[in-house]
Amino acid sequence: MFLSLNDNGGEFIMKYEGFQTFTTEQDSGILTVTFDFGSVNVQGQEMLADLNSLAMRLERDRSTKVVVFQSANPEIWVCHYDTELLKDMSTVAVSREDAQLLDLQEVCERISKVPQATIAKLEGFARGGGHELALAMDMRFAARGKYKFMQMEVGMGILPCGGGASRMARQTGLGRALEIILSARDFDADEAEAFGTINKALEPDQIGEYVDTLAKRIAQFPAESINACKRAVYESIDKPIEEALKAEAYWLYQATSKTPAIKRFAIADEQRLEDDIENQRNWNDLVMKVQEIN
Amino acid sequence: MFLSLNDNGGEFIMKYEGFQTFTTEQDSGILTVTFDFGSVNVQGQEMLADLNSLAMRLERDRSTKVVVFQSANPEIWVCHYDTELLKDMSTVAVSREDAQLLDLQEVCERISKVPQATIAKLEGFARGGGHELALAMDMRFAARGKYKFMQMEVGMGILPCGGGASRMARQTGLGRALEIILSARDFDADEAEAFGTINKALEPDQIGEYVDTLAKRIAQFPAESINACKRAVYESIDKPIEEALKAEAYWLYQATSKTPAIKRFAIADEQRLEDDIENQRNWNDLVMKVQEIN
Amino acid sequence: MFLSLNDNGGEFIMKYEGFQTFTTEQDSGILTVTFDFGSVNVQGQEMLADLNSLAMRLERDRSTKVVVFQSANPEIWVCHYDTELLKDMSTVAVSREDAQLLDLQEVCERISKVPQATIAKLEGFARGGGHELALAMDMRFAARGKYKFMQMEVGMGILPCGGGASRMARQTGLGRALEIILSARDFDADEAEAFGTINKALEPDQIGEYVDTLAKRIAQFPAESINACKRAVYESIDKPIEEALKAEAYWLYQATSKTPAIKRFAIADEQRLEDDIENQRNWNDLVMKVQEIN
Repeated sequence: MFLSLNDNGGEFIMKYEGFQTFTTEQDSGILTVTFDFGSVNVQGQEMLADLNSLAMRLERDRSTKVVVFQSANPEIWVCHYDTELLKDMSTVAVSREDAQLLDLQEVCERISKVPQATIAKLEGFARGGGHELALAMDMRFAARGKYKFMQMEVGMGILPCGGGASRMARQTGLGRALEIILSARDFDADEAEAFGTINKALEPDQIGEYVDTLAKRIAQFPAESINACKRAVYESIDKPIEEALKAEAYWLYQATSKTPAIKRFAIADEQRLEDDIENQRNWNDLVMKVQEIN
Repeated sequence: MFLSLNDNGGEFIMKYEGFQTFTTEQDSGILTVTFDFGSVNVQGQEMLADLNSLAMRLERDRSTKVVVFQSANPEIWVCHYDTELLKDMSTVAVSREDAQLLDLQEVCERISKVPQATIAKLEGFARGGGHELALAMDMRFAARGKYKFMQMEVGMGILPCGGGASRMARQTGLGRALEIILSARDFDADEAEAFGTINKALEPDQIGEYVDTLAKRIAQFPAESINACKRAVYESIDKPIEEALKAEAYWLYQATSKTPAIKRFAIADEQRLEDDIENQRNWNDLVMKVQEIN
Repeated sequence: MFLSLNDNGGEFIMKYEGFQTFTTEQDSGILTVTFDFGSVNVQGQEMLADLNSLAMRLERDRSTKVVVFQSANPEIWVCHYDTELLKDMSTVAVSREDAQLLDLQEVCERISKVPQATIAKLEGFARGGGHELALAMDMRFAARGKYKFMQMEVGMGILPCGGGASRMARQTGLGRALEIILSARDFDADEAEAFGTINKALEPDQIGEYVDTLAKRIAQFPAESINACKRAVYESIDKPIEEALKAEAYWLYQATSKTPAIKRFAIADEQRLEDDIENQRNWNDLVMKVQEIN
């Protein structure tokens, strides 16, 4: 079902076209998505549709390994959810059984589960649904002085309902998740790093290179082991340790059945590479050289 | 069932009276609870009874939005559990089925679930059950030089059994939770911030204003969205992501059915406030101005 | 079934002998395990067998309270999993039902559950399975300049499958767990402390004393309360809060039925020690003096 092949194979490169709210660029296994819609990158019907279509393609694409989400807007990464959609929300208190997932929840969850490594490169505001989209990505890096995030929903009379209430304490402790969601105030990049909602705060002139280096590194690894890693980590926190370990074992064979792992281990073992202390010192580079074995 | 109305409405203000171990003060949606009992604020039968009564009232009160817990004792926030109660604990190793919740567990859990935002303002020691009570609150702020916490139970021959063993790793990583609980040593405010058991360490002359500003901000938000936020966040870590998202959707409609949210969104949309970059820059203040729409 | 008695009783001291990959030293309730195997402390069949035998003995030993794991190798704590074993892994994608736990998973999980407090004293590299073994311990301390960790599995074509994918986000937030596992790069001691995968980064000339002080403190506490604390904390994150609290209550009586806790509380209560503010100030030392009551 996965017709697209490796970049080098060049046969079936997935097409990323027809989006209204962002542009895309493909290069060596990295897809860069640049939000660029209206004055503030509002998160409305168009962006939801685009993100859903993007996820649909990513799910079928094995040549793209990493997706970087950035913004063309100098001040805003992705804006909050469109009031044009919010104003029509139901005011009927449904039962737990009748509660259906919301559109933004569905889209963010689908983005969260794509087989690629996803990176939010945050060089502007990300508030409300914009921040919830960032939380649905695997990793987040933010530029000092430019980045601010806020969950303002409690102040409007609701709660973060694009997965934000569910995902916040999966990044930081319960107390800090509650402070973020109950205070409805701006947090800057350093506060976000201290709380752990982002991986790292970086200077504005360094974030580009940092994310680029990381994306290029991951993009050289096998698509199926990237996916297996993601799936196992996400499953791990939703399960007791015994079941998490079983899921880990399951994903191992999903990977070995599709990647050159065993071939790589066999060659390494034949040459007894592990016994050489010099190799042990240089694992950071060695892991990249291994990519030549396919 | 919720007879108390908004402060401004002024009709039914919940009465907080008849407590032995703390005094209370109500002001503009904020209830300040000041522990003041004996020489060390011991956590005995009287305090448990008072906290239970307090929770009972808070559960029925919709005019109080925030509860700040502080101490009149210059050195101790809340002391450990009373040895007068500890000495009579059972020494029979009951089965898992027969294990009943302990009094301190019940009280802390009830405090944890009140519909208000709860803040521990920690300007003295909080050890054993005192620290477990702090962990049952939504947020914790501590004064440098004055605050120390310890879970000394392992050294006595038991474990933190007022929810402390259960809640510690919900605030910090597993390794740090184990170090705290197995080392039975004092940790200061900066260590607590680094580990994440408190939200933030503050200078003794700044903690008052910091907590006051936070409490006043939250107290202006709708009671029902504060409750919905709390409930969704606490549920989120006890459930797999799919179920957490459903709970989030459930709480959304619990909020929209009782708050002025839709009215606020409709007005914002009518004026297309979101499209103005100046509004996006000023969300930190804007969210407070929104409170005028009811 | 637990024939070994307290050190001081001296009757049945568990023998730790017959290991190929590490040496052991017993002193006052502390067992020090020093990895010393070949040029790089490879994690192969011999080490797995040794760790399994070690766990078997620890499970039956009540005189040992703390186990410190260190390395005689100046550069490596424990190396990654042996390619000699990796090269023979199955490439058949089994179903979730048929996925069995892997040997390294089983051994790490067994080490994780021993009744003693376990400490990884990391003064060299810990990568792949070596790092996963460290993650299976209760606490981790690392020496600046000497320690590096990496999960390189994604780059080989697999995932961390010695419990690493399952345990990473139990120590740090989801985003940072994913960065560690997807980037397959070296992280140093300060990065590890910031992410929370270790408890603390220390100077190379200070880590010895720090770990020693901690181990000696814990080793004075009752064996059964150490075990109860561990079990309750590990269970807590695998269960909803209501069930975690019940487990906490269960472990309380497991402890009181076997430790001198009630005797200690009774004496403390008789003397009303808690009412004296001087005692409250000195809890850090007081908890050690309590150990004289048995």
